[in-house]
Amino acid sequence: MSYQLIENALGKMVPSHINGQEVVPYQGVGKYHPSGQKAAPAISSCANYPSSGDKTVANLKTALLKAGLRNGMTISTHHHFRDGDLLANQIFDIAAEEGVKDLVWFPSASFPCHSKMIRHLESGVIHHIEGSMNGPLGEFVTAGKMKGMAVLRSHGGRYQAIQDGEVHVDISVIAAPTADPFGNANGLRGPSACGLLGFALADSQYADKVIVVSDNLVPFPCHPWQIQGNYVDYVVSVEQVGDPSKIVSGTTQITKSPDRLLIAELATRFAIEAGIVQDGFSFQAGAGGTSLAFAIFLEKFMEENQIRARFVRGGSTQYLVKMLEKGLTDYILDGQTFDLEGVRSMREHPCHVDTSPFTSYNYHGKGNFASLIDVVILGATEVDLNFNANVVTHSDGKLLHGLGGWQNCLFSKCTILPIPSFRDRLPVIRDQVTTVCGPGELIDVIITERGIAINPLREDLIAKTKGSNLPIRPLEDIKEEVDKLCGKPDLPVLDEEVVAAIKWVDGTVIDAVRKLK
Amino acid sequence: MSYQLIENALGKMVPSHINGQEVVPYQGVGKYHPSGQKAAPAISSCANYPSSGDKTVANLKTALLKAGLRNGMTISTHHHFRDGDLLANQIFDIAAEEGVKDLVWFPSASFPCHSKMIRHLESGVIHHIEGSMNGPLGEFVTAGKMKGMAVLRSHGGRYQAIQDGEVHVDISVIAAPTADPFGNANGLRGPSACGLLGFALADSQYADKVIVVSDNLVPFPCHPWQIQGNYVDYVVSVEQVGDPSKIVSGTTQITKSPDRLLIAELATRFAIEAGIVQDGFSFQAGAGGTSLAFAIFLEKFMEENQIRARFVRGGSTQYLVKMLEKGLTDYILDGQTFDLEGVRSMREHPCHVDTSPFTSYNYHGKGNFASLIDVVILGATEVDLNFNANVVTHSDGKLLHGLGGWQNCLFSKCTILPIPSFRDRLPVIRDQVTTVCGPGELIDVIITERGIAINPLREDLIAKTKGSNLPIRPLEDIKEEVDKLCGKPDLPVLDEEVVAAIKWVDGTVIDAVRKLK
Repeated sequence: MSYQLIENALGKMVPSHINGQEVVPYQGVGKYHPSGQKAAPAISSCANYPSSGDKTVANLKTALLKAGLRNGMTISTHHHFRDGDLLANQIFDIAAEEGVKDLVWFPSASFPCHSKMIRHLESGVIHHIEGSMNGPLGEFVTAGKMKGMAVLRSHGGRYQAIQDGEVHVDISVIAAPTADPFGNANGLRGPSACGLLGFALADSQYADKVIVVSDNLVPFPCHPWQIQGNYVDYVVSVEQVGDPSKIVSGTTQITKSPDRLLIAELATRFAIEAGIVQDGFSFQAGAGGTSLAFAIFLEKFMEENQIRARFVRGGSTQYLVKMLEKGLTDYILDGQTFDLEGVRSMREHPCHVDTSPFTSYNYHGKGNFASLIDVVILGATEVDLNFNANVVTHSDGKLLHGLGGWQNCLFSKCTILPIPSFRDRLPVIRDQVTTVCGPGELIDVIITERGIAINPLREDLIAKTKGSNLPIRPLEDIKEEVDKLCGKPDLPVLDEEVVAAIKWVDGTVIDAVRKLK
Repeated sequence: MSYQLIENALGKMVPSHINGQEVVPYQGVGKYHPSGQKAAPAISSCANYPSSGDKTVANLKTALLKAGLRNGMTISTHHHFRDGDLLANQIFDIAAEEGVKDLVWFPSASFPCHSKMIRHLESGVIHHIEGSMNGPLGEFVTAGKMKGMAVLRSHGGRYQAIQDGEVHVDISVIAAPTADPFGNANGLRGPSACGLLGFALADSQYADKVIVVSDNLVPFPCHPWQIQGNYVDYVVSVEQVGDPSKIVSGTTQITKSPDRLLIAELATRFAIEAGIVQDGFSFQAGAGGTSLAFAIFLEKFMEENQIRARFVRGGSTQYLVKMLEKGLTDYILDGQTFDLEGVRSMREHPCHVDTSPFTSYNYHGKGNFASLIDVVILGATEVDLNFNANVVTHSDGKLLHGLGGWQNCLFSKCTILPIPSFRDRLPVIRDQVTTVCGPGELIDVIITERGIAINPLREDLIAKTKGSNLPIRPLEDIKEEVDKLCGKPDLPVLDEEVVAAIKWVDGTVIDAVRKLK
């Protein structure tokens, strides 16, 4: 093995090196103090760019070759089209055609549409992937089939890694619904409008070469310039850059499960009873069915009680858009549009604002937006009695999900995990979670259909909800009840070999995913 | 002397060192190829910033002390309030109170209101100024009274110098008409609304410590965040941050001089005859009286001929705003609002867009906006027969003006200098300009009340205007005629000592200003 296993502050054994690079084990929340300087890109000169501003080249292959595509490079893409991405596969098909090997693919997230990458992983075109593992790629990794070690980072952690020089991007390819020949680009207009392009921001700022690909080239200036042409090397015009219908995933529908509706209702009642839902408050609820139900219940309460939020954080959906249009919030601060209503609203409403992992999530900035949010609703695959939570692996040991903004959102003033107490007869509250993605000290409340458990560290929340008629119980009690129902689950049989490292928001390694035997 | 004089590509003798730092002499347009990396600011951590996002401190003095104000630091300010700036003087008054010495003041421009700095220059609180010299400060410098050497840079050159690490800013103080406690800030709203804050962008991105000062603190989020709170260390609330009535200077009135009106008319006719004024074209005209007259004449022609510009570049004024509102241009791309109508329009009109020296002028980017502009109208204090031009000194040797965006704008597709052939009986066309600020190869047309001279390098423009009834003449002819009228002027008596260095857009030294004997 090219690494040793060392114990981090959570007692987890993590690799000392990732793909040959020495790493720092997790040291606790806010305990690791970075030293050194940010990454410093090479200085460019306008003398080397067309004075007309026209950076268009014939096609993606030409752009990649001009950008110097060669063995061992790190190529980044972003996931604003989610499962409708059309570019990433093309890039590595071109690399394969050109006989290029040992690339690192550094997407902001991967989706089932990227299962085609498996053949490039097998053939050696791609050495390893640093990014979320969704579905088939996750299974491939968990089976120990990828040459290098996978690295999973939160959205903020990805910005941090690029900014801090942990990941050097050689070529960034940005799918842009609208662009001009100078490279200014946004996601607001055009046949493939997907909303915003914030996940590509760090790449545009720090990559050696930046390629913008669009199916809607407009004359300069393309405004707003969510991506600034001053960072862009080449512009490519294509027939179709992405399939925006697929930014809507199954997770953007409100749950119909009675249990989950109950959980969402409990979460809403908790936020209200704890005194969080007041004029000028803020919340973030993702696109999962339970989160959406929470937002709907909250909306009803806000309307009835004439409460107006200062801002809500997206992933935006039609539900948040409706709140903005009804005047229930001053702003949507949006990191990712999850449906086409979100796209429309961002284009039309001046208070539906696009944000980026830099503004919202980068832990190595002078603050970020995530810690300013009053209450956030997040999911989890597992939790343990110390309130540690897992979001990337299932209890069978398989790596199947990415971190998204999950770790970053834990820094909100009140983090609630509304989760079922068991799934497929497997208890969700475990003795130990398969993979720790977030430390318990940041997780304030766990809400199941069997009751609400408040983290003992949050004496303020315990005091505020004392005397309410909420079903507040110790987490141990809920676990015991579920364990009786489900029985003690079998644990997966894992190899010692690490197939994926889980980074914390500060670049340290919080846990590792093992090969499944 | 702490430097030698070396000859640059224009044959000018320039200092080898500026304030102890070795510099590169000007090598020709696009001839200097920068190597190396951009400046790399220290990595921050959210762990060191309040999780509430509230970065407010009691007052400016507290903020400066927390930022570590000490001897020898470089302190930057910006000039969006122009002669209505209220902060810069306060900063150095505080420094004087605290007994701090040898500071470098690095403003984006100075104005007559800053003449109070002279006492800090005399007492040693400020060692030298790097920035434009306007009026009294310029006279002080030209007289050789400043301890260090002044450095003048264009707006783009200032961004380049910070980005490339030539100038390291220790503390940046940003006057913000609106801000939130996190440090997000803009110039659009509040009692001191001044439009935009682009000149402070580089400082916010690269300075060690960033202080935002505002008289209009709003709850998070202050949007748009022209300055991003993620770069900001401290926020200070004050009674009044600037006097926006003084952003309107005397130069934002249309000229009433018949000669200058004629010159402006000739410039307009030239642009039309040369085929530049077509649907989708672009132009930039500054806030000088002649430039404004040019814009008015152009507007009339565009209306009569149903021509619509794609964009016009500001400094915005009521005249440009009117063009936008009439539909004569798709966009105003604005670098600096020159009157309150400009401020209002930028706040209200989605196509009145704020830009920054990064997007528009930075020569060490992957292109910039300046070279995309079809025609630009600029001023000059002097020109010579090689079309070299001066914009910072008068013929008496006094340094009285800054470079502004002048050098950057020379990269437009057609640069026109509409200037009177003499001022105060001194000819404007000289054997040699007192200070070369822009090389003749970038200056295409000189238009005086006595005729139009086209740079012989621009055969295309010569061909296009051949056969027109424009008074096109060789520059030599015009000079001869004026010299006969005015007589040969006395030249100023200059010392060898360099009091100010003039940087080119790429950081090389294009000329030097001598001490006046």
